[in-house]
Amino acid sequence: MIADMRLEQLPASSGVVARAFSVDGVPGVLWGPEVPLGPTPLVLMGHPGGLHKTSPGLVARAERFARVYGFHAAAIDAPGHGERERSAEDAGWVDRMMAARGSGEALGPIVADFNASIAERAVPEWRCVIDELCRLPGIDADRTIGYTGMTLATEIGLRLADADPRIGPLVVGGAFASPQLTAVARRLRHPVRVLLPWDDPELPREDGLALFDAIGSDEKTLHAFPGPHQRVPATESDDGAWFIARHLLAPRT
Amino acid sequence: MIADMRLEQLPASSGVVARAFSVDGVPGVLWGPEVPLGPTPLVLMGHPGGLHKTSPGLVARAERFARVYGFHAAAIDAPGHGERERSAEDAGWVDRMMAARGSGEALGPIVADFNASIAERAVPEWRCVIDELCRLPGIDADRTIGYTGMTLATEIGLRLADADPRIGPLVVGGAFASPQLTAVARRLRHPVRVLLPWDDPELPREDGLALFDAIGSDEKTLHAFPGPHQRVPATESDDGAWFIARHLLAPRT
Repeated sequence: MIADMRLEQLPASSGVVARAFSVDGVPGVLWGPEVPLGPTPLVLMGHPGGLHKTSPGLVARAERFARVYGFHAAAIDAPGHGERERSAEDAGWVDRMMAARGSGEALGPIVADFNASIAERAVPEWRCVIDELCRLPGIDADRTIGYTGMTLATEIGLRLADADPRIGPLVVGGAFASPQLTAVARRLRHPVRVLLPWDDPELPREDGLALFDAIGSDEKTLHAFPGPHQRVPATESDDGAWFIARHLLAPRT
Repeated sequence: MIADMRLEQLPASSGVVARAFSVDGVPGVLWGPEVPLGPTPLVLMGHPGGLHKTSPGLVARAERFARVYGFHAAAIDAPGHGERERSAEDAGWVDRMMAARGSGEALGPIVADFNASIAERAVPEWRCVIDELCRLPGIDADRTIGYTGMTLATEIGLRLADADPRIGPLVVGGAFASPQLTAVARRLRHPVRVLLPWDDPELPREDGLALFDAIGSDEKTLHAFPGPHQRVPATESDDGAWFIARHLLAPRT
């Protein structure tokens, strides 16, 4: 409900306005151009597992959407992340993940289950947040909405796209190709860019390839780069933003 | 030798000048801006097997380098292609290739050997052409040279980059990952973009992945897209040109 939404200005870089909000107890941030030229497209910014809505990389990409393209960009904390308390059950998952990391056990199955559980909770939250944001006069609710995010944010984003017809182009990557997520990917018809960290010590290359292969869209591209998922080259990150932007700026059909 | 080089104007799109040339019997075309702002970077345009230096896709990309970036772009016919006569040995290879295609036999080993043989002949030809082009006042011989091309042109381009220190960024794709070409790829330290047609009926996906994996460069990206190698999406093609351009326009070190 719009009544639950508070907008409070945060520090941001020149030309950009950032506002804190909360929808039904889910805290978020909305970035937008200081001088909008009218209602703008909206891009949702997912954060990786363990990070939050104002992690520096996410903020830089969100501000860039506002500054370069004149869009609004929004982030929320996923369940148990950022300002939100972690449940006992989620804490158990984190412990199992840390133990596996310590013992060299495969992380995939644990992370995939943990992320799937978070995503099941995060998707309805995002849908309520979209409802509220689309009521703001600064946002063009008639346009398709972009989504971008890696690892946990990919698990959430693909499921959100599958559940909510308002989602358009997605830039994702670094998820485990569980049978559940693969089935979701097969149903998608959205323009999708998959980023594949070629040498990530914890994310198997094969999972990225399998997920890309599964995506049902005609317009899909896979962009692989050396190194781990934390080091997306700036050229890929900027080009991913342009991929989102050209879809959101396309004439309405 | 510059004495062997003739320059003769060909029809081209607005703002672009195209000139036919020949170096030691190898016919080529040089595209450039109608009004150059000074000596410009050079991009070499390789053509796929079975095509030639003025195939429409190649011409469009070459003219774009001249029009959008103000560069010169050059193409030559590979041995046995375009204006050049096919030797009896090459004709035998083509027959074996066609027979394999007809019978459903794997094309890889035949094409890889054929392309390797053509590339062995094409590399010294390209090097002579580069010598000549770099003597032209319109070309900035102090800058690194870009290279772009798919299938046969990848076999040639990777070997040319390995052999000639003047080659810089490369956009390639669609080659078979023979042990020979994989060994060449391992030695490269150039910025490389590999285009991977995800569903090509004749180019195994695994070969593209293996070749990308082998490339020794720190700066390498793999861009995969649905469909066969003849259908590179315009966004990938244009972004590949920008990848070349930003390297050629970088300040000299």
